[in-house]
Amino acid sequence: MAPTITAFEESPDEGQGQARDMRVRWALEEVGQRYDVRLVSFKTMKEAAHRKLHPFGQIPTYEEGDLALFESGSIILHIAEGHAGLLPKEASARARAITWMFAALNTVEPPIVNREMAEILERKKPWYKEHLAYLDERVHERLGDLSKRLGDAEWLDCAFGAGDLLMVTVLRRLNGSGILEKHPNLSAYVARGKARPAFKQAFADQLAVFTGKQAGAG
Amino acid sequence: MAPTITAFEESPDEGQGQARDMRVRWALEEVGQRYDVRLVSFKTMKEAAHRKLHPFGQIPTYEEGDLALFESGSIILHIAEGHAGLLPKEASARARAITWMFAALNTVEPPIVNREMAEILERKKPWYKEHLAYLDERVHERLGDLSKRLGDAEWLDCAFGAGDLLMVTVLRRLNGSGILEKHPNLSAYVARGKARPAFKQAFADQLAVFTGKQAGAG
Repeated sequence: MAPTITAFEESPDEGQGQARDMRVRWALEEVGQRYDVRLVSFKTMKEAAHRKLHPFGQIPTYEEGDLALFESGSIILHIAEGHAGLLPKEASARARAITWMFAALNTVEPPIVNREMAEILERKKPWYKEHLAYLDERVHERLGDLSKRLGDAEWLDCAFGAGDLLMVTVLRRLNGSGILEKHPNLSAYVARGKARPAFKQAFADQLAVFTGKQAGAG
Repeated sequence: MAPTITAFEESPDEGQGQARDMRVRWALEEVGQRYDVRLVSFKTMKEAAHRKLHPFGQIPTYEEGDLALFESGSIILHIAEGHAGLLPKEASARARAITWMFAALNTVEPPIVNREMAEILERKKPWYKEHLAYLDERVHERLGDLSKRLGDAEWLDCAFGAGDLLMVTVLRRLNGSGILEKHPNLSAYVARGKARPAFKQAFADQLAVFTGKQAGAG
Protein backbone atom coordinates (compact mmCIF):
# COMPACT_ATOMS: atom_id res chain seq x y z
CA MET A 1 0.00 0.00 0.00
CA ALA A 2 1.30 3.46 -0.92
CA PRO A 3 1.87 5.69 2.11
CA THR A 4 0.30 9.15 2.34
CA ILE A 5 2.33 12.17 3.42
CA THR A 6 1.14 15.68 4.17
CA ALA A 7 2.53 18.88 2.66
CA PHE A 8 1.66 22.59 2.60
CA GLU A 9 -1.22 23.63 0.38
CA GLU A 10 0.46 26.98 -0.14
CA SER A 11 4.22 27.40 -0.38
CA PRO A 12 5.88 29.63 2.22
CA ASP A 13 9.02 29.68 0.03
CA GLU A 14 7.44 29.93 -3.42
CA GLY A 15 8.24 26.36 -4.36
CA GLN A 16 11.91 26.32 -3.39
CA GLY A 17 11.32 23.00 -1.65
CA GLN A 18 12.50 24.10 1.80
CA ALA A 19 9.51 22.63 3.62
CA ARG A 20 10.20 19.33 5.32
CA ASP A 21 7.95 17.26 3.04
CA MET A 22 10.76 17.63 0.46
CA ARG A 23 13.01 15.38 2.57
CA VAL A 24 10.42 12.67 2.75
CA ARG A 25 9.57 12.94 -0.95
CA TRP A 26 13.27 12.63 -1.77
CA ALA A 27 13.69 9.56 0.45
CA LEU A 28 10.64 7.90 -1.12
CA GLU A 29 11.99 8.59 -4.61
CA GLU A 30 15.42 7.19 -3.67
CA VAL A 31 13.86 3.87 -2.68
CA GLY A 32 11.33 3.86 -5.52
CA GLN A 33 8.24 3.94 -3.30
CA ARG A 34 5.14 5.54 -4.81
CA TYR A 35 3.22 7.77 -2.39
CA ASP A 36 0.16 9.96 -2.10
CA VAL A 37 0.11 13.54 -0.86
CA ARG A 38 -2.59 15.22 1.19
CA LEU A 39 -2.28 19.00 1.21
CA VAL A 40 -3.05 20.95 4.38
CA SER A 41 -3.49 24.67 4.89
CA PHE A 42 -1.78 26.67 7.66
CA LYS A 43 -5.18 26.74 9.33
CA THR A 44 -6.16 23.07 9.13
CA MET A 45 -2.64 22.10 10.17
CA LYS A 46 -3.37 23.52 13.62
CA GLU A 47 -6.77 21.86 14.00
CA ALA A 48 -7.56 18.77 16.06
CA ALA A 49 -7.83 16.32 13.14
CA HIS A 50 -4.31 17.08 11.94
CA ARG A 51 -2.93 17.27 15.48
CA LYS A 52 -3.98 13.65 15.96
CA LEU A 53 -1.32 12.86 13.38
CA HIS A 54 1.13 15.59 14.41
CA PRO A 55 0.84 16.89 17.99
CA PHE A 56 2.83 20.03 17.10
CA GLY A 57 0.57 20.91 14.17
CA GLN A 58 3.21 20.71 11.46
CA ILE A 59 4.02 18.83 8.26
CA PRO A 60 5.06 16.27 7.13
CA THR A 61 3.15 13.36 8.53
CA TYR A 62 3.31 9.81 7.19
CA GLU A 63 0.45 7.30 7.14
CA GLU A 64 0.82 3.70 6.07
CA GLY A 65 -2.13 1.52 6.98
CA ASP A 66 -2.59 1.85 10.73
CA LEU A 67 0.81 3.43 11.28
CA ALA A 68 0.99 7.22 11.64
CA LEU A 69 4.33 8.98 12.09
CA PHE A 70 5.57 12.57 12.26
CA GLU A 71 9.07 14.16 12.39
CA SER A 72 10.94 14.03 9.07
CA GLY A 73 13.89 12.24 10.71
CA SER A 74 11.73 9.45 12.05
CA ILE A 75 9.79 9.08 8.80
CA ILE A 76 13.00 8.82 6.80
CA LEU A 77 14.47 6.28 9.21
CA HIS A 78 11.29 4.24 8.87
CA ILE A 79 11.50 4.39 5.05
CA ALA A 80 15.21 3.49 5.15
CA GLU A 81 14.54 0.49 7.36
CA GLY A 82 11.83 -0.82 5.06
CA HIS A 83 13.71 -0.46 1.76
CA ALA A 84 17.25 -0.89 0.48
CA GLY A 85 19.27 2.14 -0.58
CA LEU A 86 19.32 4.64 2.31
CA LEU A 87 21.18 2.78 5.07
CA PRO A 88 24.07 0.30 4.90
CA LYS A 89 23.28 -3.26 5.97
CA GLU A 90 26.41 -3.78 8.09
CA ALA A 91 25.59 -2.88 11.71
CA SER A 92 28.46 -0.45 12.44
CA ALA A 93 28.12 1.40 9.14
CA ARG A 94 24.37 1.61 9.75
CA ALA A 95 24.86 3.10 13.23
CA ARG A 96 27.29 5.67 11.83
CA ALA A 97 24.85 6.61 9.06
CA ILE A 98 22.09 7.12 11.63
CA THR A 99 24.49 9.30 13.64
CA TRP A 100 24.67 11.66 10.66
CA MET A 101 20.87 11.80 10.55
CA PHE A 102 20.81 13.04 14.14
CA ALA A 103 23.77 15.37 13.51
CA ALA A 104 21.92 16.99 10.61
CA LEU A 105 18.78 17.52 12.66
CA ASN A 106 20.09 18.24 16.15
CA THR A 107 23.49 19.88 15.57
CA VAL A 108 23.48 21.52 12.13
CA GLU A 109 19.83 22.45 11.54
CA PRO A 110 19.06 24.40 14.76
CA PRO A 111 21.53 27.27 14.18
CA ILE A 112 20.42 27.46 10.53
CA VAL A 113 16.76 27.69 11.55
CA ASN A 114 17.66 30.36 14.13
CA ARG A 115 19.18 32.67 11.54
CA GLU A 116 16.25 32.02 9.20
CA MET A 117 13.77 32.95 11.93
CA ALA A 118 15.73 36.11 12.79
CA GLU A 119 15.63 37.12 9.11
CA ILE A 120 11.87 36.73 9.13
CA LEU A 121 10.97 38.08 12.55
CA GLU A 122 13.66 40.53 13.65
CA ARG A 123 14.37 42.48 10.49
CA LYS A 124 12.88 45.70 11.88
CA LYS A 125 14.37 45.38 15.37
CA PRO A 126 17.16 47.80 16.29
CA TRP A 127 19.35 44.85 17.29
CA TYR A 128 18.81 42.90 14.06
CA LYS A 129 22.24 43.43 12.51
CA GLU A 130 24.17 42.58 15.65
CA HIS A 131 22.06 39.52 16.40
CA LEU A 132 22.24 38.24 12.82
CA ALA A 133 26.05 38.58 12.84
CA TYR A 134 26.12 36.45 15.98
CA LEU A 135 23.78 33.85 14.46
CA ASP A 136 25.81 33.75 11.23
CA GLU A 137 28.89 33.03 13.30
CA ARG A 138 27.21 30.05 14.96
CA VAL A 139 26.26 28.66 11.53
CA HIS A 140 29.81 29.15 10.19
CA GLU A 141 31.19 27.34 13.22
CA ARG A 142 29.10 24.23 12.53
CA LEU A 143 29.75 24.40 8.79
CA GLY A 144 33.49 24.76 9.39
CA ASP A 145 33.49 21.57 11.48
CA LEU A 146 31.36 19.73 8.95
CA SER A 147 33.54 20.92 6.07
CA LYS A 148 36.68 19.60 7.80
CA ARG A 149 35.09 16.23 8.40
CA LEU A 150 33.77 15.90 4.84
CA GLY A 151 37.10 16.94 3.29
CA ASP A 152 37.37 15.59 -0.24
CA ALA A 153 34.87 12.80 0.32
CA GLU A 154 31.79 12.54 -1.83
CA TRP A 155 29.41 11.69 1.03
CA LEU A 156 29.65 11.80 4.85
CA ASP A 157 30.25 8.09 5.38
CA CYS A 158 31.10 6.12 2.23
CA ALA A 159 27.99 5.71 0.08
CA PHE A 160 25.10 8.20 -0.15
CA GLY A 161 22.52 7.56 2.54
CA ALA A 162 19.81 8.95 4.80
CA GLY A 163 22.37 11.07 6.72
CA ASP A 164 23.44 12.80 3.51
CA LEU A 165 19.85 13.23 2.41
CA LEU A 166 19.00 15.06 5.63
CA MET A 167 22.26 17.03 5.73
CA VAL A 168 21.82 18.26 2.14
CA THR A 169 18.26 19.41 2.81
CA VAL A 170 19.39 21.15 6.00
CA LEU A 171 22.26 22.94 4.21
CA ARG A 172 19.93 23.92 1.36
CA ARG A 173 18.05 26.09 3.85
CA LEU A 174 21.00 28.51 3.60
CA ASN A 175 20.09 29.27 -0.05
CA GLY A 176 20.50 32.95 -0.72
CA SER A 177 22.36 33.70 2.52
CA GLY A 178 25.82 33.53 0.92
CA ILE A 179 27.00 31.40 3.85
CA LEU A 180 27.26 28.02 2.16
CA GLU A 181 29.42 29.47 -0.60
CA LYS A 182 32.14 30.21 1.95
CA HIS A 183 32.55 26.45 2.44
CA PRO A 184 33.26 25.25 -1.14
CA ASN A 185 33.35 21.52 -0.39
CA LEU A 186 29.93 21.80 1.29
CA SER A 187 28.54 23.73 -1.72
CA ALA A 188 29.79 20.94 -3.97
CA TYR A 189 28.29 18.35 -1.60
CA VAL A 190 24.87 20.01 -1.78
CA ALA A 191 25.19 20.23 -5.57
CA ARG A 192 25.90 16.48 -5.70
CA GLY A 193 22.77 15.83 -3.67
CA LYS A 194 20.65 18.04 -5.89
CA ALA A 195 21.97 16.31 -9.00
CA ARG A 196 20.53 12.95 -7.95
CA PRO A 197 17.55 11.91 -10.10
CA ALA A 198 15.48 11.20 -6.97
CA PHE A 199 16.06 14.75 -5.67
CA LYS A 200 15.07 16.21 -9.04
CA GLN A 201 11.87 14.17 -9.19
CA ALA A 202 10.93 15.09 -5.60
CA PHE A 203 11.69 18.75 -6.25
CA ALA A 204 9.55 18.78 -9.41
CA ASP A 205 6.68 17.11 -7.56
CA GLN A 206 6.68 19.57 -4.65
CA LEU A 207 6.92 22.47 -7.11
CA ALA A 208 4.00 21.13 -9.14
CA VAL A 209 1.73 21.58 -6.11
CA PHE A 210 2.22 25.33 -6.35
CA THR A 211 2.45 25.77 -10.10
CA GLY A 212 -0.49 23.41 -10.64
CA LYS A 213 1.30 21.65 -13.50
CA GLN A 214 0.37 18.18 -12.28
CA ALA A 215 -1.37 16.41 -9.41
CA GLY A 216 0.75 16.60 -6.29
CA ALA A 217 1.77 12.97 -6.04
CA GLY A 218 5.12 11.29 -6.63
CA MET B 1 32.90 -5.45 26.19
CA ALA B 2 31.86 -2.36 28.15
CA PRO B 3 31.49 0.75 25.97
CA THR B 4 33.32 3.98 26.81
CA ILE B 5 31.53 7.31 26.75
CA THR B 6 32.99 10.80 27.11
CA ALA B 7 31.81 13.46 29.56
CA PHE B 8 32.95 16.89 30.77
CA GLU B 9 35.88 16.98 33.18
CA GLU B 10 34.44 20.14 34.73
CA SER B 11 30.72 20.73 35.14
CA PRO B 12 29.26 23.76 33.35
CA ASP B 13 26.12 23.36 35.51
CA GLU B 14 27.67 22.40 38.84
CA GLY B 15 26.61 18.78 38.62
CA GLN B 16 22.93 19.33 37.72
CA GLY B 17 23.31 16.69 35.04
CA GLN B 18 22.24 18.88 32.12
CA ALA B 19 25.14 17.83 29.90
CA ARG B 20 24.23 15.28 27.25
CA ASP B 21 26.29 12.45 28.75
CA MET B 22 23.50 12.21 31.36
CA ARG B 23 21.10 10.90 28.69
CA VAL B 24 23.49 8.18 27.62
CA ARG B 25 24.31 7.22 31.23
CA TRP B 26 20.58 6.96 31.95
CA ALA B 27 19.98 4.77 28.89
CA LEU B 28 22.87 2.47 29.83
CA GLU B 29 21.52 2.16 33.38
CA GLU B 30 18.01 1.37 32.09
CA VAL B 31 19.34 -1.59 30.09
CA GLY B 32 21.83 -2.66 32.76
CA GLN B 33 24.94 -2.14 30.64
CA ARG B 34 28.15 -1.31 32.53
CA TYR B 35 30.25 1.42 30.90
CA ASP B 36 33.46 3.36 31.28
CA VAL B 37 33.80 7.12 31.21
CA ARG B 38 36.65 9.14 29.77
CA LEU B 39 36.60 12.76 30.92
CA VAL B 40 37.55 15.54 28.50
CA SER B 41 38.28 19.20 29.17
CA PHE B 42 36.75 22.07 27.18
CA LYS B 43 40.19 22.41 25.57
CA THR B 44 40.88 18.79 24.61
CA MET B 45 37.31 18.46 23.36
CA LYS B 46 38.17 20.82 20.52
CA GLU B 47 41.45 19.11 19.61
CA ALA B 48 42.04 16.76 16.66
CA ALA B 49 42.09 13.51 18.68
CA HIS B 50 38.61 14.13 20.10
CA ARG B 51 37.29 15.51 16.82
CA LYS B 52 38.08 12.15 15.21
CA LEU B 53 35.34 10.80 17.46
CA HIS B 54 33.12 13.88 17.36
CA PRO B 55 33.53 16.20 14.36
CA PHE B 56 31.77 19.05 16.18
CA GLY B 57 34.07 18.81 19.23
CA GLN B 58 31.38 17.98 21.78
CA ILE B 59 30.41 15.27 24.22
CA PRO B 60 29.14 12.57 24.54
CA THR B 61 30.87 10.10 22.29
CA TYR B 62 30.41 6.34 22.44
CA GLU B 63 33.09 3.74 21.67
CA GLU B 64 32.43 0.03 21.57
CA GLY B 65 35.23 -1.98 19.99
CA ASP B 66 35.76 -0.53 16.52
CA LEU B 67 32.49 1.38 16.53
CA ALA B 68 32.59 5.10 17.38
CA LEU B 69 29.40 7.16 17.53
CA PHE B 70 28.43 10.70 18.50
CA GLU B 71 25.05 12.50 18.94
CA SER B 72 23.15 11.48 22.05
CA GLY B 73 20.09 10.51 19.98
CA SER B 74 22.05 8.14 17.80
CA ILE B 75 23.92 6.63 20.76
CA ILE B 76 20.67 6.00 22.62
CA LEU B 77 19.05 4.46 19.55
CA HIS B 78 22.07 2.17 19.22
CA ILE B 79 21.82 1.15 22.89
CA ALA B 80 18.06 0.62 22.56
CA GLU B 81 18.53 -1.61 19.50
CA GLY B 82 21.10 -3.77 21.27
CA HIS B 83 19.21 -4.31 24.54
CA ALA B 84 15.64 -4.85 25.66
CA GLY B 85 13.85 -2.14 27.62
CA LEU B 86 14.02 1.10 25.65
CA LEU B 87 12.06 0.34 22.47
CA PRO B 88 8.99 -1.83 21.90
CA LYS B 89 9.52 -4.94 19.76
CA GLU B 90 6.40 -4.54 17.62
CA ALA B 91 7.33 -2.63 14.44
CA SER B 92 4.65 0.11 14.55
CA ALA B 93 5.09 0.81 18.26
CA ARG B 94 8.86 0.92 17.70
CA ALA B 95 8.50 3.45 14.86
CA ARG B 96 6.25 5.64 17.02
CA ALA B 97 8.73 5.50 19.91
CA ILE B 98 11.54 6.58 17.59
CA THR B 99 9.34 9.43 16.41
CA TRP B 100 9.30 10.76 19.97
CA MET B 101 13.10 10.59 20.07
CA PHE B 102 13.29 12.86 17.04
CA ALA B 103 10.51 15.09 18.40
CA ALA B 104 12.44 15.59 21.64
CA LEU B 105 15.64 16.50 19.82
CA ASN B 106 14.42 18.37 16.75
CA THR B 107 11.14 19.98 17.85
CA VAL B 108 11.24 20.48 21.63
CA GLU B 109 14.93 20.90 22.44
CA PRO B 110 15.89 23.68 19.97
CA PRO B 111 13.64 26.41 21.46
CA ILE B 112 14.72 25.36 24.97
CA VAL B 113 18.40 25.64 24.02
CA ASN B 114 17.72 29.02 22.42
CA ARG B 115 16.36 30.52 25.61
CA GLU B 116 19.20 28.94 27.60
CA MET B 117 21.77 30.49 25.26
CA ALA B 118 20.08 33.90 25.45
CA GLU B 119 20.20 33.70 29.25
CA ILE B 120 23.93 33.06 29.06
CA LEU B 121 24.96 35.35 26.21
CA GLU B 122 22.48 38.21 25.96
CA ARG B 123 21.89 39.12 29.60
CA LYS B 124 23.62 42.49 29.23
CA LYS B 125 22.18 43.38 25.84
CA PRO B 126 19.59 46.17 25.73
CA TRP B 127 17.19 43.85 23.90
CA TYR B 128 17.52 40.96 26.38
CA LYS B 129 14.14 41.26 28.07
CA GLU B 130 12.18 41.58 24.86
CA HIS B 131 14.05 38.74 23.17
CA LEU B 132 13.72 36.43 26.18
CA ALA B 133 9.97 37.03 26.32
CA TYR B 134 9.76 36.02 22.67
CA LEU B 135 11.89 32.90 23.28
CA ASP B 136 9.81 31.96 26.34
CA GLU B 137 6.71 32.15 24.18
CA ARG B 138 8.21 29.72 21.65
CA VAL B 139 8.99 27.25 24.46
CA HIS B 140 5.47 27.57 25.94
CA GLU B 141 3.99 26.92 22.51
CA ARG B 142 5.85 23.60 22.16
CA LEU B 143 5.15 22.63 25.78
CA GLY B 144 1.48 23.44 25.37
CA ASP B 145 1.25 21.07 22.39
CA LEU B 146 3.21 18.38 24.20
CA SER B 147 1.10 18.77 27.32
CA LYS B 148 -2.11 18.32 25.32
CA ARG B 149 -0.78 15.16 23.68
CA LEU B 150 0.47 13.65 26.93
CA GLY B 151 -2.78 14.41 28.77
CA ASP B 152 -3.21 12.04 31.70
CA ALA B 153 -0.91 9.37 30.27
CA GLU B 154 2.12 8.22 32.20
CA TRP B 155 4.47 8.16 29.18
CA LEU B 156 4.28 9.46 25.59
CA ASP B 157 3.41 6.16 23.93
CA CYS B 158 2.36 3.37 26.32
CA ALA B 159 5.43 2.08 28.20
CA PHE B 160 8.47 4.15 29.17
CA GLY B 161 11.05 4.18 26.38
CA ALA B 162 13.86 6.00 24.62
CA GLY B 163 11.52 8.80 23.51
CA ASP B 164 10.53 9.52 27.11
CA LEU B 165 14.13 9.32 28.25
CA LEU B 166 15.14 11.99 25.75
CA MET B 167 12.04 14.13 26.31
CA VAL B 168 12.53 14.16 30.09
CA THR B 169 16.19 15.18 29.77
CA VAL B 170 15.21 17.90 27.29
CA LEU B 171 12.46 19.25 29.59
CA ARG B 172 14.82 19.12 32.58
CA ARG B 173 16.90 21.81 30.86
CA LEU B 174 14.13 24.24 31.89
CA ASN B 175 15.03 23.77 35.57
CA GLY B 176 14.92 27.08 37.36
CA SER B 177 13.15 28.93 34.54
CA GLY B 178 9.68 28.53 36.06
CA ILE B 179 8.37 27.51 32.63
CA LEU B 180 7.83 23.80 33.18
CA GLU B 181 5.76 24.48 36.30
CA LYS B 182 3.14 26.18 34.13
CA HIS B 183 2.43 22.81 32.50
CA PRO B 184 1.61 20.60 35.51
CA ASN B 185 1.25 17.31 33.64
CA LEU B 186 4.69 17.84 32.11
CA SER B 187 6.20 18.63 35.54
CA ALA B 188 4.72 15.38 36.83
CA TYR B 189 6.04 13.55 33.75
CA VAL B 190 9.57 14.82 34.39
CA ALA B 191 9.22 13.87 38.08
CA ARG B 192 8.23 10.31 37.04
CA GLY B 193 11.32 10.10 34.87
CA LYS B 194 13.58 11.36 37.65
CA ALA B 195 12.09 8.84 40.08
CA ARG B 196 13.29 5.88 38.01
CA PRO B 197 16.16 4.00 39.69
CA ALA B 198 18.22 4.14 36.48
CA PHE B 199 17.90 7.95 36.36
CA LYS B 200 18.97 8.22 40.00
CA GLN B 201 22.02 6.02 39.47
CA ALA B 202 23.05 7.93 36.33
CA PHE B 203 22.56 11.24 38.11
CA ALA B 204 24.66 10.13 41.08
CA ASP B 205 27.41 8.92 38.76
CA GLN B 206 27.64 12.16 36.77
CA LEU B 207 27.59 14.14 40.02
CA ALA B 208 30.39 12.03 41.48
CA VAL B 209 32.71 13.23 38.70
CA PHE B 210 32.50 16.75 40.10
CA THR B 211 32.26 16.02 43.82
CA GLY B 212 34.99 13.39 43.53
CA LYS B 213 33.08 11.01 45.75
CA GLN B 214 33.77 8.01 43.51
CA ALA B 215 35.42 7.09 40.24
CA GLY B 216 33.35 8.35 37.33
CA ALA B 217 32.06 5.07 36.00
CA GLY B 218 28.60 3.55 36.09
